[in-house]
Amino acid sequence: MTHAHPEPYPVQRPGSSGIGVWLVGARGSIATCLAYGLANLVEGLLEPTGLASEAPPLTRLDLVPLDTLVLGGHDVCSRELARSAAELVRARILTPELVAGGARRVAQFERAIRPGLLDAPDTGLADVDPRAAERGALAPRAQIGALQADWAAFEADHGLTRTIVVYLASSEAAREPQPEWDSLPALERALDEGVPQPASLLYAYAALASGRPFINFTPNLGAGPKAMRALAEARRVPHTGNDGKTGETLLKTVLAPMFMARALRVRAWQGYNMLGNRDGEVLREEAHKAGKLRTKDEALRSILGDSRDLTTKVAIDYVPSLHDWKTAYDFIHFEGFLGAQMSLQFTWQGSDSALAAPLVIDLVRLMEFAARRGEFGVLTHTAMFFKAPLGGGRHDFFDQVARLEAYVERAAPQS
Amino acid sequence: MTHAHPEPYPVQRPGSSGIGVWLVGARGSIATCLAYGLANLVEGLLEPTGLASEAPPLTRLDLVPLDTLVLGGHDVCSRELARSAAELVRARILTPELVAGGARRVAQFERAIRPGLLDAPDTGLADVDPRAAERGALAPRAQIGALQADWAAFEADHGLTRTIVVYLASSEAAREPQPEWDSLPALERALDEGVPQPASLLYAYAALASGRPFINFTPNLGAGPKAMRALAEARRVPHTGNDGKTGETLLKTVLAPMFMARALRVRAWQGYNMLGNRDGEVLREEAHKAGKLRTKDEALRSILGDSRDLTTKVAIDYVPSLHDWKTAYDFIHFEGFLGAQMSLQFTWQGSDSALAAPLVIDLVRLMEFAARRGEFGVLTHTAMFFKAPLGGGRHDFFDQVARLEAYVERAAPQS
Amino acid sequence: MTHAHPEPYPVQRPGSSGIGVWLVGARGSIATCLAYGLANLVEGLLEPTGLASEAPPLTRLDLVPLDTLVLGGHDVCSRELARSAAELVRARILTPELVAGGARRVAQFERAIRPGLLDAPDTGLADVDPRAAERGALAPRAQIGALQADWAAFEADHGLTRTIVVYLASSEAAREPQPEWDSLPALERALDEGVPQPASLLYAYAALASGRPFINFTPNLGAGPKAMRALAEARRVPHTGNDGKTGETLLKTVLAPMFMARALRVRAWQGYNMLGNRDGEVLREEAHKAGKLRTKDEALRSILGDSRDLTTKVAIDYVPSLHDWKTAYDFIHFEGFLGAQMSLQFTWQGSDSALAAPLVIDLVRLMEFAARRGEFGVLTHTAMFFKAPLGGGRHDFFDQVARLEAYVERAAPQS
Amino acid sequence: MTHAHPEPYPVQRPGSSGIGVWLVGARGSIATCLAYGLANLVEGLLEPTGLASEAPPLTRLDLVPLDTLVLGGHDVCSRELARSAAELVRARILTPELVAGGARRVAQFERAIRPGLLDAPDTGLADVDPRAAERGALAPRAQIGALQADWAAFEADHGLTRTIVVYLASSEAAREPQPEWDSLPALERALDEGVPQPASLLYAYAALASGRPFINFTPNLGAGPKAMRALAEARRVPHTGNDGKTGETLLKTVLAPMFMARALRVRAWQGYNMLGNRDGEVLREEAHKAGKLRTKDEALRSILGDSRDLTTKVAIDYVPSLHDWKTAYDFIHFEGFLGAQMSLQFTWQGSDSALAAPLVIDLVRLMEFAARRGEFGVLTHTAMFFKAPLGGGRHDFFDQVARLEAYVERAAPQS
Repeated sequence: MTHAHPEPYPVQRPGSSGIGVWLVGARGSIATCLAYGLANLVEGLLEPTGLASEAPPLTRLDLVPLDTLVLGGHDVCSRELARSAAELVRARILTPELVAGGARRVAQFERAIRPGLLDAPDTGLADVDPRAAERGALAPRAQIGALQADWAAFEADHGLTRTIVVYLASSEAAREPQPEWDSLPALERALDEGVPQPASLLYAYAALASGRPFINFTPNLGAGPKAMRALAEARRVPHTGNDGKTGETLLKTVLAPMFMARALRVRAWQGYNMLGNRDGEVLREEAHKAGKLRTKDEALRSILGDSRDLTTKVAIDYVPSLHDWKTAYDFIHFEGFLGAQMSLQFTWQGSDSALAAPLVIDLVRLMEFAARRGEFGVLTHTAMFFKAPLGGGRHDFFDQVARLEAYVERAAPQS
Repeated sequence: MTHAHPEPYPVQRPGSSGIGVWLVGARGSIATCLAYGLANLVEGLLEPTGLASEAPPLTRLDLVPLDTLVLGGHDVCSRELARSAAELVRARILTPELVAGGARRVAQFERAIRPGLLDAPDTGLADVDPRAAERGALAPRAQIGALQADWAAFEADHGLTRTIVVYLASSEAAREPQPEWDSLPALERALDEGVPQPASLLYAYAALASGRPFINFTPNLGAGPKAMRALAEARRVPHTGNDGKTGETLLKTVLAPMFMARALRVRAWQGYNMLGNRDGEVLREEAHKAGKLRTKDEALRSILGDSRDLTTKVAIDYVPSLHDWKTAYDFIHFEGFLGAQMSLQFTWQGSDSALAAPLVIDLVRLMEFAARRGEFGVLTHTAMFFKAPLGGGRHDFFDQVARLEAYVERAAPQS
Repeated sequence: MTHAHPEPYPVQRPGSSGIGVWLVGARGSIATCLAYGLANLVEGLLEPTGLASEAPPLTRLDLVPLDTLVLGGHDVCSRELARSAAELVRARILTPELVAGGARRVAQFERAIRPGLLDAPDTGLADVDPRAAERGALAPRAQIGALQADWAAFEADHGLTRTIVVYLASSEAAREPQPEWDSLPALERALDEGVPQPASLLYAYAALASGRPFINFTPNLGAGPKAMRALAEARRVPHTGNDGKTGETLLKTVLAPMFMARALRVRAWQGYNMLGNRDGEVLREEAHKAGKLRTKDEALRSILGDSRDLTTKVAIDYVPSLHDWKTAYDFIHFEGFLGAQMSLQFTWQGSDSALAAPLVIDLVRLMEFAARRGEFGVLTHTAMFFKAPLGGGRHDFFDQVARLEAYVERAAPQS
Repeated sequence: MTHAHPEPYPVQRPGSSGIGVWLVGARGSIATCLAYGLANLVEGLLEPTGLASEAPPLTRLDLVPLDTLVLGGHDVCSRELARSAAELVRARILTPELVAGGARRVAQFERAIRPGLLDAPDTGLADVDPRAAERGALAPRAQIGALQADWAAFEADHGLTRTIVVYLASSEAAREPQPEWDSLPALERALDEGVPQPASLLYAYAALASGRPFINFTPNLGAGPKAMRALAEARRVPHTGNDGKTGETLLKTVLAPMFMARALRVRAWQGYNMLGNRDGEVLREEAHKAGKLRTKDEALRSILGDSRDLTTKVAIDYVPSLHDWKTAYDFIHFEGFLGAQMSLQFTWQGSDSALAAPLVIDLVRLMEFAARRGEFGVLTHTAMFFKAPLGGGRHDFFDQVARLEAYVERAAPQS
């Protein structure tokens, strides 16, 4: 590979101690929950409920302390964090106390938010920052350069040891697979030639090419394509993804193995999701919904096997009055001994953002730990956090938990 | 121990090949489902849905073929199996086809049913076989002798290699712990002195003392007390129990670990069970309900930890119109990041007997395999089948599955 | 109107006493349930559960006795009733006892089934009777004549006083409204000119034009268009419809008025239906689904008012393993005093055909009663039976019940 | 009757215009919701969602304007309203905005709260106002006199035309029926003789005897006994009750008539209620639970008829983490045509206090209207608001709605 990169790898600045956490989608509700939650945790005003990295077995690892994390981010819209927070208070997720307790640190974060890359199919969105539209219109190499320059400035400003890039933006429009995604040289060439690429891929490229670990918390392309994985291997950067496993899919990967362990035959698994946040709004468009639905259904089918006669369905409906409160109803029809017809139904009512935010913190800490240890490529031990783990493996949640436990066993300091 | 036993250990008769499966509660709905199901499986008229021993990984073990199993049993009531079957057809669990397909083999089974031991507190039950009441009134040693004589005759009649005793009778009245249950010599003395004992303990004693493996599929005392475990060790007989994990508790031990793995704080777990079979009828009496409820709640609390502020409840209500269709509704209130209040509800609708029957077959095959290999004492690898595993260990279902898989790994022939 | 009709009105043959019930869709599952149910009721082998016409207040009317009803029908497929019945036994709706108890009378019914009119868009269906395809290809007037000839022969064979035509066929493809549907002369002209018409309209026309009362139990066009209503008025024939209210919509029209009576503000009402019968299979095609969904949503919106911010959704999914067991899950998000956000969820699990069949019997008896009394046009007192009552009025179920009670009050013999 | 009453009836003071609303249980969560809600409504800061008296058809009546209502009350505990409000904010029912918006008017209300009568069985409660314990220990006549003196002072302070007494206190311990409750002279004698009486009866007596209308929103005794009804008739005072119909029972009286109208046979109706407010805490004691459960079950049985084989159950469990969020799960097993077994399940999640508070306002306005028109005795047209309407009649909700509509028709000014 002859292409010149703007920054040397690895990013390490002696004498500094902060760890940068760069949130792409910095004004969205996950980032807002994360920013206020982290601030209140550091201030000692909040219990670490939902944070697996503050509970056994992860506490056995020498993870970075929460007060070392410094937030920055990109966003394509210009809505103030205070407005996002007020929405979350009205939706009864954040409380006025938490907003007050986090205000100072969140203001600091907000000063470190830069305009992101507006993806071409998303130009119609509300509140778009015109600078994001400008950036989105640049040639791909220029877009990449702009991102890396933002990160470099952020690191310099805060004297950071390392920055982890976390991709949290809304679902992007599904695209036909492109040939250049299959090989790194082809991708480099396409970038050189100015062939437009999805924003999530450009973020991932910019991060990996500059030695910055990358976490894709969405179903978007990110670092998933073969070309990108080759890039991560070549630069020896760790990354992980895709698509945070927060609610209905979590339950699917918990319950489906039970049916298998009991040799019960699942005949139908219908999942109906209702949500009213911006994510739901974006999903109203069929193009954006396709990617999301695919990963949700694949996890299930991979566990149950492609048995004859299995009917599955995943629907996502936009119900604005629910705001961030995702309500999922699943109906599972199964057959037992003697052909007896049985069923299981569940209703899950959870705040999607409050479920996602702590997973992001857990992932950042695991990623920083892995980078510090010199691990690179896909972090397969983080599969339990994702609907479509890049490292593959069984989707069975408890199998994934066992993999993480085995990693802890290997990586923890021996007592 | 100086007490003389009526039969030598181990029971092995050269030249024979059948394996006896002795069902205590032979006229109940689990036994009826098992008998018709097994007959239809052997005839090739039924798929082995719900039978874990016919699916990986258990198929890696050299388990006894289904057509080798010969059924016999004890019961305290005299209701004909055809009547139990007709009830199950009306309840839409058995079909007329399955009743017809199993008729010949079930008739054979019925000829091998003998009057059981009527427990003193149960004298008011309907359909009681007067011979069971007579037997129940005998001195304990005489009761034990009668059981062993029945088994010996059964084995002789059918030329059986070994008999596995499976305890499936209805919940028995809860009793205060007795001092003799804690030591085998004390128990032997109490039996000698004619101190009355719960029927389930006498069955277990009779089996273990005569070298017959014992499976307790109920919450009753069975082989649980220390004295009985010592007996099993002394005679080198394998046994397992207690209380088959078929429905709501299965789900609890599947779902509770998920909350732990995500560091979500469960604040309340309310479980409401409705059922209408004879088991439900018996549970109407508070004395019988106590034991059942205890094991259901313990599994949950052992996984979630005795956290402050955790509210749990298990209710069982008798709803006759549901017959064997157990309907369980659980409401789980939990807290996530930022203190966000979330919930999960589920409704499980399953036929209790159709769920239990294949587990009994799986356990019999694992027990026969273990006995053949010379294993004895509690079979800890069977924990996944029980609400209150005698071998202890984490109640977490997937942990239990992993233990069974590890056993298969050790015990399977190397390819 | 100068058009000649093949038969004089009213159909009345002195000396006869039977009442014909002509089922369009005679081999479907509603008709099968109706035929076996009616036969068993007449034989005294079944209780009249689900039959409002056998309970107060309808028992105050002098309704036709059940044993007077003689069944005949049209169908486009050639599947034998015994096969439909066997499917319903497997689906645990009919029992072998009911099939045996009804066999003789159902055989009589089957002999009176004639090939129906295959609607052009439905030519791809399975089991199609080739004679139905031939008939469907005739000119409209010839199709009408063929139907009327079938009815006349049926009446002659059985010496019937009157025949009620009940339209029960599967959902037909939605069509753009045609100008000729708005005026009777225009429709007569279109028929004369051979303009193809939907089958449901031809059945309705054939019935009304020949003085036979018509019940449309489906969302199909039937006698709904203005031209058809004018025909009913002109010929002084009673009719009613559309779309039997059996499950989820019934609940909607029961629950929505409760929210209104309490001034609670419904913000979202999401309804998810799963079913696996032939009706569900047909609904897989978007064209067929449109009509069904429209009437389901209209009832709700008409009760709740077109309030700002109200989100509603009705989905119907085909889940073959459920057969005739319609499972509907509705999630209702509502707001109370102080802006408190509340919810109601329900799950309805019912056999669609077993719910529909008794309503058809009730409607036939009310229709015969009305015809006997000389009522004509739309029977507005039957609104409680329909999702989209032709007579309009509030969809509120209890308002509809009150209307039926008021009719009984007027029409019942004074004591 | 020779007993002297401290005040003449009717209470009317020329020149004044306010209407007193006296809340017994003034510091409880219903009263807190009512006080803040009413204040915000009057200030124009809240929409009247949940207030039937602000919607048709009740808007046709000349009801008293909301800003005319002046609040006062009794309570046995001394917890400040601000603390009750803070609890409701934490429980996500009140919002900080509503607390701020209502602060001034609520402070005025709090100044008008007087110590209530502590019922003997309740002496162990937390936060008890010692003055309430003292008052509760007085002779009955002295207790009555103290209440009436409080009301007279309240009316004088605020220049009120009339005071409506609303009983909202927690469930009181169930008591054996006393002979004196059956006749007014016997009751007067018992009071003269100092026979202790339940607090709810003393409040009702004090109100009715002094010509003040009385509303019993609880299942407690109140004005239900024959003796009290005679008192209301004798003094020509209007009153109503018992037990506000807010959630699960509301749904029961809405849904049960549907099954009847369709001749569907309900076989089991199991209702499980979970709640965590003070009401739930009190209900933990069996003595307090009995009264509540009785009225909840009676409504259902009265609609469905005492059919053979009908199983019903109502359970109330205390789940502290739910605070005021009552979650009710009902499972309804029913049978349709052909004996098909079907089910309906629902889950209701609502804030009990936010559901109750607007009903109290509606009732106060209807009561004031009735009193102004000279109506007296039980107001039968208010049955739709109660689980156990004092006026009797069918529990069918829509029948009750029709009765209220008929009243409006009679009482509304003709246009």
